[in-house]
Amino acid sequence: MNALPEPIQALITELGRLPGIGPRSAERLALHVVRADLDAVRRLAAALVQARERIQLCTLCGGLTEAQPCALCADPRRDPALLCVVEQPVDILLLEKSGAYRGRYHVLGGVISPLNGVGPEDLRIADLETRLDREPIREVVVALGTQVEGDATGHYLARRLAGRGLRITRIAHGLPAGSGLEFADEVTLSRALEGRRELIP
Amino acid sequence: MNALPEPIQALITELGRLPGIGPRSAERLALHVVRADLDAVRRLAAALVQARERIQLCTLCGGLTEAQPCALCADPRRDPALLCVVEQPVDILLLEKSGAYRGRYHVLGGVISPLNGVGPEDLRIADLETRLDREPIREVVVALGTQVEGDATGHYLARRLAGRGLRITRIAHGLPAGSGLEFADEVTLSRALEGRRELIP
Repeated sequence: MNALPEPIQALITELGRLPGIGPRSAERLALHVVRADLDAVRRLAAALVQARERIQLCTLCGGLTEAQPCALCADPRRDPALLCVVEQPVDILLLEKSGAYRGRYHVLGGVISPLNGVGPEDLRIADLETRLDREPIREVVVALGTQVEGDATGHYLARRLAGRGLRITRIAHGLPAGSGLEFADEVTLSRALEGRRELIP
Repeated sequence: MNALPEPIQALITELGRLPGIGPRSAERLALHVVRADLDAVRRLAAALVQARERIQLCTLCGGLTEAQPCALCADPRRDPALLCVVEQPVDILLLEKSGAYRGRYHVLGGVISPLNGVGPEDLRIADLETRLDREPIREVVVALGTQVEGDATGHYLARRLAGRGLRITRIAHGLPAGSGLEFADEVTLSRALEGRRELIP
């Protein structure tokens, strides 16, 4: 027989729909929840619904925000001449954590992928061009993934935006920080060699 | 600056309190939730609160249940002569999944651990004795973990319950299913050797 009462089974089902939560994790989490502090469980449930209800996409950059435009777009201290193109809203967070970027962002919402039926018209590229028309942008920094689609999308953007007198760059591909050569695949090593820089300039 | 709107940050904090959910997982889950289907998020939130509010511990066996006594204790098809002693309610679930046990259960709620200040009086051992007095139990199957505390608690139970004319057994320790000798530590191998059985009886 199934030893699990229905409310736990229902919770396992819902938890198992989250990305990266397999059946075992869902079970472990559910069995924690049924014995956890009731107020803590209510806080978690409220936080889930609140986050989903209050967060929207910024109509300008496409990032996650509670207000329009988002805090990054509205921040006068951000360099208006620099625009970083990313695939997903979460990428903005990752770049912000690095602390190495002071410009603004533009979320494409994906990368060009003919195999998955994603063409340029499915991405926020027309919105990007509108921003380039209106804002004093001088450099577009392409910060897409280094898979084939990310690379191809970067090259597509470089061609499509050519002739605007913009500097179009992409973030460096190379050896990740704190890693030895023995952990890098040959493509990474080849790109790291191509992108080599003078140690004593 | 922090690129994360407050409701996402709050959700990451709450998710990060769950066992096995580190800061990165919490962030990934939160960023999924804010873009997930609103009904799905509401279903998850409701399932969390419902599971916590509706699940209690069975007053007889100590397992998880919605009703008193639990479905396992109330099931007349379970062998009333067999009682399996486990550490936690979740252990019942694991043993039920194996499909190899047809008796009833008793949850101790922990194991004896002087280092952690857990003595026999902190566990449901007196409740176990009450059941042994009242129920037609002939065999107590000790199914505790194979760590030092689990072993010691098993031996303590065997001594404390001696003289009742009960068969007191513990589940076998040995090589896990589907595993080679090269993955087993020496204690496991030593126990597997001690517990060896005739192939052709």
